[in-house]
Amino acid sequence: METRNIYDNISALDHRYSVSDPALFKQLSAYFAESSFVRYCVRVELALVRAHLHFQGDDQNADVKLLDGLEDRIDPAEVYEEENKTRHNIRALVNVIKRHVPDSLNSLVHLGATSVDILDTAQSLRIRDGIQKLIIPKIEECLALLAAWSEKEAETAQIGRTHGQYAVPITLGYAFAEYTSRLGKSLLEIVRLSDQLAGKIAGAVGAYNATSLLYADPEAFEIYTLGLLELQASEHSTQLVEPEYLLRILLEINIAFGIIANLADDLRHLQRSEIDEVREYFAPDQVGSSTMPQKRNPWNAEHVKSLWKAFSPRVVTFFMDQISEHQRDLSNSASGRFVTDYLTGFTLAVSRMNNILQGLSVRPEGLAENLRKGGAGVLAEAAYILLGKKGEKDGHEIIRQLTIKAEREKTNFIDVLKADAALWQRLQDALAEVNGPKAELFFASPELYRGKSAEKARAIAKKWKKYLETKSQP
Amino acid sequence: METRNIYDNISALDHRYSVSDPALFKQLSAYFAESSFVRYCVRVELALVRAHLHFQGDDQNADVKLLDGLEDRIDPAEVYEEENKTRHNIRALVNVIKRHVPDSLNSLVHLGATSVDILDTAQSLRIRDGIQKLIIPKIEECLALLAAWSEKEAETAQIGRTHGQYAVPITLGYAFAEYTSRLGKSLLEIVRLSDQLAGKIAGAVGAYNATSLLYADPEAFEIYTLGLLELQASEHSTQLVEPEYLLRILLEINIAFGIIANLADDLRHLQRSEIDEVREYFAPDQVGSSTMPQKRNPWNAEHVKSLWKAFSPRVVTFFMDQISEHQRDLSNSASGRFVTDYLTGFTLAVSRMNNILQGLSVRPEGLAENLRKGGAGVLAEAAYILLGKKGEKDGHEIIRQLTIKAEREKTNFIDVLKADAALWQRLQDALAEVNGPKAELFFASPELYRGKSAEKARAIAKKWKKYLETKSQP
Amino acid sequence: METRNIYDNISALDHRYSVSDPALFKQLSAYFAESSFVRYCVRVELALVRAHLHFQGDDQNADVKLLDGLEDRIDPAEVYEEENKTRHNIRALVNVIKRHVPDSLNSLVHLGATSVDILDTAQSLRIRDGIQKLIIPKIEECLALLAAWSEKEAETAQIGRTHGQYAVPITLGYAFAEYTSRLGKSLLEIVRLSDQLAGKIAGAVGAYNATSLLYADPEAFEIYTLGLLELQASEHSTQLVEPEYLLRILLEINIAFGIIANLADDLRHLQRSEIDEVREYFAPDQVGSSTMPQKRNPWNAEHVKSLWKAFSPRVVTFFMDQISEHQRDLSNSASGRFVTDYLTGFTLAVSRMNNILQGLSVRPEGLAENLRKGGAGVLAEAAYILLGKKGEKDGHEIIRQLTIKAEREKTNFIDVLKADAALWQRLQDALAEVNGPKAELFFASPELYRGKSAEKARAIAKKWKKYLETKSQP
Amino acid sequence: METRNIYDNISALDHRYSVSDPALFKQLSAYFAESSFVRYCVRVELALVRAHLHFQGDDQNADVKLLDGLEDRIDPAEVYEEENKTRHNIRALVNVIKRHVPDSLNSLVHLGATSVDILDTAQSLRIRDGIQKLIIPKIEECLALLAAWSEKEAETAQIGRTHGQYAVPITLGYAFAEYTSRLGKSLLEIVRLSDQLAGKIAGAVGAYNATSLLYADPEAFEIYTLGLLELQASEHSTQLVEPEYLLRILLEINIAFGIIANLADDLRHLQRSEIDEVREYFAPDQVGSSTMPQKRNPWNAEHVKSLWKAFSPRVVTFFMDQISEHQRDLSNSASGRFVTDYLTGFTLAVSRMNNILQGLSVRPEGLAENLRKGGAGVLAEAAYILLGKKGEKDGHEIIRQLTIKAEREKTNFIDVLKADAALWQRLQDALAEVNGPKAELFFASPELYRGKSAEKARAIAKKWKKYLETKSQP
Repeated sequence: METRNIYDNISALDHRYSVSDPALFKQLSAYFAESSFVRYCVRVELALVRAHLHFQGDDQNADVKLLDGLEDRIDPAEVYEEENKTRHNIRALVNVIKRHVPDSLNSLVHLGATSVDILDTAQSLRIRDGIQKLIIPKIEECLALLAAWSEKEAETAQIGRTHGQYAVPITLGYAFAEYTSRLGKSLLEIVRLSDQLAGKIAGAVGAYNATSLLYADPEAFEIYTLGLLELQASEHSTQLVEPEYLLRILLEINIAFGIIANLADDLRHLQRSEIDEVREYFAPDQVGSSTMPQKRNPWNAEHVKSLWKAFSPRVVTFFMDQISEHQRDLSNSASGRFVTDYLTGFTLAVSRMNNILQGLSVRPEGLAENLRKGGAGVLAEAAYILLGKKGEKDGHEIIRQLTIKAEREKTNFIDVLKADAALWQRLQDALAEVNGPKAELFFASPELYRGKSAEKARAIAKKWKKYLETKSQP
Repeated sequence: METRNIYDNISALDHRYSVSDPALFKQLSAYFAESSFVRYCVRVELALVRAHLHFQGDDQNADVKLLDGLEDRIDPAEVYEEENKTRHNIRALVNVIKRHVPDSLNSLVHLGATSVDILDTAQSLRIRDGIQKLIIPKIEECLALLAAWSEKEAETAQIGRTHGQYAVPITLGYAFAEYTSRLGKSLLEIVRLSDQLAGKIAGAVGAYNATSLLYADPEAFEIYTLGLLELQASEHSTQLVEPEYLLRILLEINIAFGIIANLADDLRHLQRSEIDEVREYFAPDQVGSSTMPQKRNPWNAEHVKSLWKAFSPRVVTFFMDQISEHQRDLSNSASGRFVTDYLTGFTLAVSRMNNILQGLSVRPEGLAENLRKGGAGVLAEAAYILLGKKGEKDGHEIIRQLTIKAEREKTNFIDVLKADAALWQRLQDALAEVNGPKAELFFASPELYRGKSAEKARAIAKKWKKYLETKSQP
Repeated sequence: METRNIYDNISALDHRYSVSDPALFKQLSAYFAESSFVRYCVRVELALVRAHLHFQGDDQNADVKLLDGLEDRIDPAEVYEEENKTRHNIRALVNVIKRHVPDSLNSLVHLGATSVDILDTAQSLRIRDGIQKLIIPKIEECLALLAAWSEKEAETAQIGRTHGQYAVPITLGYAFAEYTSRLGKSLLEIVRLSDQLAGKIAGAVGAYNATSLLYADPEAFEIYTLGLLELQASEHSTQLVEPEYLLRILLEINIAFGIIANLADDLRHLQRSEIDEVREYFAPDQVGSSTMPQKRNPWNAEHVKSLWKAFSPRVVTFFMDQISEHQRDLSNSASGRFVTDYLTGFTLAVSRMNNILQGLSVRPEGLAENLRKGGAGVLAEAAYILLGKKGEKDGHEIIRQLTIKAEREKTNFIDVLKADAALWQRLQDALAEVNGPKAELFFASPELYRGKSAEKARAIAKKWKKYLETKSQP
Repeated sequence: METRNIYDNISALDHRYSVSDPALFKQLSAYFAESSFVRYCVRVELALVRAHLHFQGDDQNADVKLLDGLEDRIDPAEVYEEENKTRHNIRALVNVIKRHVPDSLNSLVHLGATSVDILDTAQSLRIRDGIQKLIIPKIEECLALLAAWSEKEAETAQIGRTHGQYAVPITLGYAFAEYTSRLGKSLLEIVRLSDQLAGKIAGAVGAYNATSLLYADPEAFEIYTLGLLELQASEHSTQLVEPEYLLRILLEINIAFGIIANLADDLRHLQRSEIDEVREYFAPDQVGSSTMPQKRNPWNAEHVKSLWKAFSPRVVTFFMDQISEHQRDLSNSASGRFVTDYLTGFTLAVSRMNNILQGLSVRPEGLAENLRKGGAGVLAEAAYILLGKKGEKDGHEIIRQLTIKAEREKTNFIDVLKADAALWQRLQDALAEVNGPKAELFFASPELYRGKSAEKARAIAKKWKKYLETKSQP
């Protein structure tokens, strides 16, 4: 076992981010480390041996039990040592496996397969497992937290903003519902696509050249072997599995990444000194700045955004790796080895976001203060709509002039409205028609002009909570 | 009508590539030009007016007929001139529409909508139409051509290659089947996603603030309005439609782009002077080089690859545009305007690929020559597998030594095999077990060692041809 | 002359952004439109003819005058029509030129050149001209505006921010000086690199095969020809000029793009409703929102950021175009045609930023208000430093505890400091040592704790203003 | 010391690629691992202490010697353990350093600095060292190998190719000279830019707020401190060093990466079975394929190309990291930690390319065979040029027709030329004028039509070998 001081590692994934959450790193390593890759390759090789026995009518072979758990007994270091001789990673693996299998099965090891049959199948397998057993639960946790926030703050008034400018009111729960809705749909796609990852046992150029010398129906042999691993077969293969099975799920994960990064941006801006509507958890003895003792930084949200900047552009490589000349060039070999870095980067981001959402606190006074500052101005739209309802064609212009007048004369917008008695009456009437409040109350209470924010926040929360409980398509 | 010499345009889409296929440009322009965008915006505004009439119980309003075809009567130039005053594109559009609608409907124009209700809905609409009416048929044409080539050349022997090195034989049809299979699945996804594009009539921050002053059930109003356009509503809206509806289909189109670029690469390499297995159509009076009169270049395949290089990386922008602060910043405004450039670039590439596939000629003599040059060496794998079938554990090493021997002694591989009578007998026996040909014939006929190439090429062609006929999920 | 309604163009560069600033579009078109490309190609072909005459000792040939201005007399449409026949763009151009040159010079046209000699040289030429005559002046204008703002607001106190949190004070001029400094250095690089763009007259594979049949020293012939165009020769050529001459300047322009985008982000956040320290110019009759009459959006800054999102990722294509197989594949042909789109996008962004900087207004009340809100807390660092100056080891922790105390007890930070007389005395003493103000004044006046903001703002402004005057390396 | 089985690491940099060349990994780790980062941070902190002593007139302080080598005595694990408490990495580092410095210097540690003063300066420092001491020597080695190949094969005839089609002859040395020339210029830029990396000691927002309380001229203090580390100061700072110092050198390294990837592509295509002009070294007992014993794959060249695909697109992140809001947001924190992954990826690629170039063998028979197959057709250009030299206007068309005739009649091109006696005479005459060979010899010897390939290959080799010897700008 070759070991190394972790701080002598180069990638931040293997030093800094491996110690910031050691339990998570251990889970990640179980799917995405090299030791995991070797283990999954052994699993595929063993499935192949078992399939041969089955197709040779020898399912009852007593020696087959000796294969059980072999994937855990083979040391990656032994494989790498062998590779020093062969300069070929799968030939090395095969040599090592042959040392560990009973003599009676020796000739069946790797028989009929090309290296990539093993590599691509093992890669699909461990990525599927990593996604289904680690990543999807993390996203589900995030979705549950978002749904909970949507529901909890469904009634909490917040000034809506467009272009960073006060627009019209919403509720904080409605703002969370955006991410609930978006992430929920992305989760559904990730679940769907994770079941479509594919393997192959189709030989050097995908046409079953070798296995058609072994069995009359080599496609049945492929399906059986992959079936032992609960994988489907690539519809067509070259030396490689069709690249799109993997590509699609990576792209969907990058979509989820963008959603989480967007949320992170919103949260860090809501923590700006001037806005101050929410706050990340900050430990009592935590230091905000090495030089400014008063600082409380939204560093977790910034971290999530920064991970997105580091990993999201890597999709360019994933698209490049679609292209392989003829039955395959090898130019996806090194690049394909960094897919697991990407998945790790995404998992770190979701996990951190979950921490943020668990520790987040809402500042009602900040929310109220900002809504107050928006002033009746945020009701300009309402006034124009109510006029429109009463058939006024130039409502937008009439109200625009009144907002300018209010600003110029430094009077309240409501007073400017009331100064025109006929106008005021029309607003009253229009409100009455939709069973709204009195104009006096309405124009003094911007939080009432929130549309369906609360209802929608609750409905979206309910829908996705139900999905998380039942796991059936909403 | 403001016109311009097309060669004074800046984008190659609007000069060079608009004249290389004028009919195609006209189709593209019908969906992706600015005049189209204005037309689709008018359609959305008119749907909104009609929805108001419906919700006001005034469906029978006689004036509504005057709206018919209004989208074709409004000149984009008039809108732009108005925008010079308003400095706001949708306010300008609304002003212009108001000039054209009957007085009785005037106050209903744009009532309750925010600009982006119109813009995002119109964008989804024209992109859906462009994809469904123009792009999908082009991909279907490509798929049909690929399926035809797969079938036609299902039996044509070709040396398979990995790493650019001779591997084991396949058939040319099998090579085409790769692209049939990959493009077919991408087409299914594009079709599926094109029906999911969404619009919104939900107001400035998506919470139905304005429309809830107009109607008791503003969500029903949204659904009705969008229903007139056969669009679904965004599950949640900020000022924007959720970005992922559009993002997903753009990513899937980029997947199809990668598949076509991969095919282009394969075709241009198959045209290398030394390989020369296929040829693009070359017109009798066409000039290959301004200075080398003998040149026949695979310039169409190169063009397709080059378009991929120009457009594929633009997905980075699409991912960036997922992120919009709070209820929306405007930083996707300019960038979103280049989505149609991207779709145009893709359409040009597919269309060019269709031309290549229509004019392609196959050179049997080139295919045969290369297969011959591969020599019996390409049967080394077969020999090793046949030994494995007979229980030999060290087959790979035995055969590897024999290939080195054949190379060193400059003898044929088959003669080296036959020189070892026992070995030769085992190969005979193994072939007999799978009802294969005699060893003498088999090792003299590399084209026989093609696995299931022909069967698979036909099966894949059949599957996708059936899909194209029935349009029902295969 | 083939014309088209501009709104039937596809690229926003050729419709929307061509009418938003028609004068600018005309300038851009002069370098980056297809008509410009044809014109520059003709210029290169004419230089070649003149070089032949020179190397044949026939400089005095009377017919050479007939070539003057020919580049303006050839209609791109004629060239494109000819290309319909030849299917080769430069062969078409040559045919057209031959129609226009006197018979005596006819055989010299294109003699010894390959297409790319003309295309790559013309591309370098027009890009150099476009950068030097249009883009660099725009950047210089931006730099001058930034330097002016740095100087003008050198003393205007502003709260500095890190992580969007109040940090310690700076001045607004210092904030502008950041961009002055960064953009200044980028400008220097763009100027330097623009003089290094290169051409070639080296033939089909760059080895002067053809011209070495014409002249004893074909490299001298290349240098002479390019000298007529004031271009240097590529050190080595394949069919192409070495790609890095162009690549480097595109990357530096993308650096400048990033700087301007960063500035745009800062400006739009400073315009947030809650911050409100600066404002873009807003015309009296401008509409901020089609539905919210009170809105004043930072849409120009958002537009600049959005252009960055659209164009910055295109560098991936530029890097891809470095790779061309052997003496050249053609896969950079289409992609290379979008370099001018990129340059146009950048120019639009700088130009818009110049408009913003010209119309920007500063809100002193907003600046003062935010600085006030930062409170004495922003002086926590100062207190800790002053203690450190007096030899205190635990200053950071002492002050951190006092800020917590002030927050808990809702007292002013200054009062907490003064409550500890010994501490207060040490602060007094430390301030005296640097000839600072009295502690009472200092801790009541956060704007005094601005370091060298003002001096540095002025120094940077001065340095770059001087550069703009003298154009000599600072 | 926390250790881990290297195969439990996630990044391929820390497992597979760390064992494929352990000596190289050790060198990389010395600059790019986390332990290196901690060490460089300590160096910066110590320089700061020394600068304080100097500015306090205490250069002779006896305790200062105790600081020597402290950077090697601090264990990163201790720092990380402390960070568990502070949740702030530099505050943790400062606490640890304080434990190790003599009491008399304790209050000077970190005094006046903000975290990023240390982090950004240390990052610039270790990247500069890593580039200058490790990466530049690797590139120099590559350049030396390329220059040697250019010279050695300067006379070796090779068919030039454009579009993968036979064009006109060059020499193999000329093909290598392309990469010598391109990589040489990139090396010069990397050297230049590596000396421009910058640090800062300018405090929380870059305006010297803290240090101006300590010293009258805080800029002089910054310059002195950085001078101890042989770094220049950022012209302007926010909390961060201006991002462009680092960005520019990363982009130039990505340019070098593209050049090497292009070379890798050329080499792997030259190894195609059908072309077979060069071969990578292949060890006697190396396995080419786990199933096809005869395979000899260009896997090293493929590996280099694949690394380029993995790392080149990461420049998008580098450009994103230019943008930081106001005086700094933290969203470059995680992303900036992967710059060292990038530099490692590049170093692996150059190093592998050096291995390829050292072990490469040239196959004269392959080169000759391909040139032969090009036939006299590759002299079509020469014939047309010679006619042009004699004043023929329609030379291109005349020759194009003759090549078609030769193809149709299956005769040699030379015989077709000779069949037209007048034409043949003109070719004779034109050759005589440039002291060329007889037409008979010339048209039978395509290798003679190589232009200045050999001379240019030698001149470029000479120039860059001289640079490598003298290190003075060529």
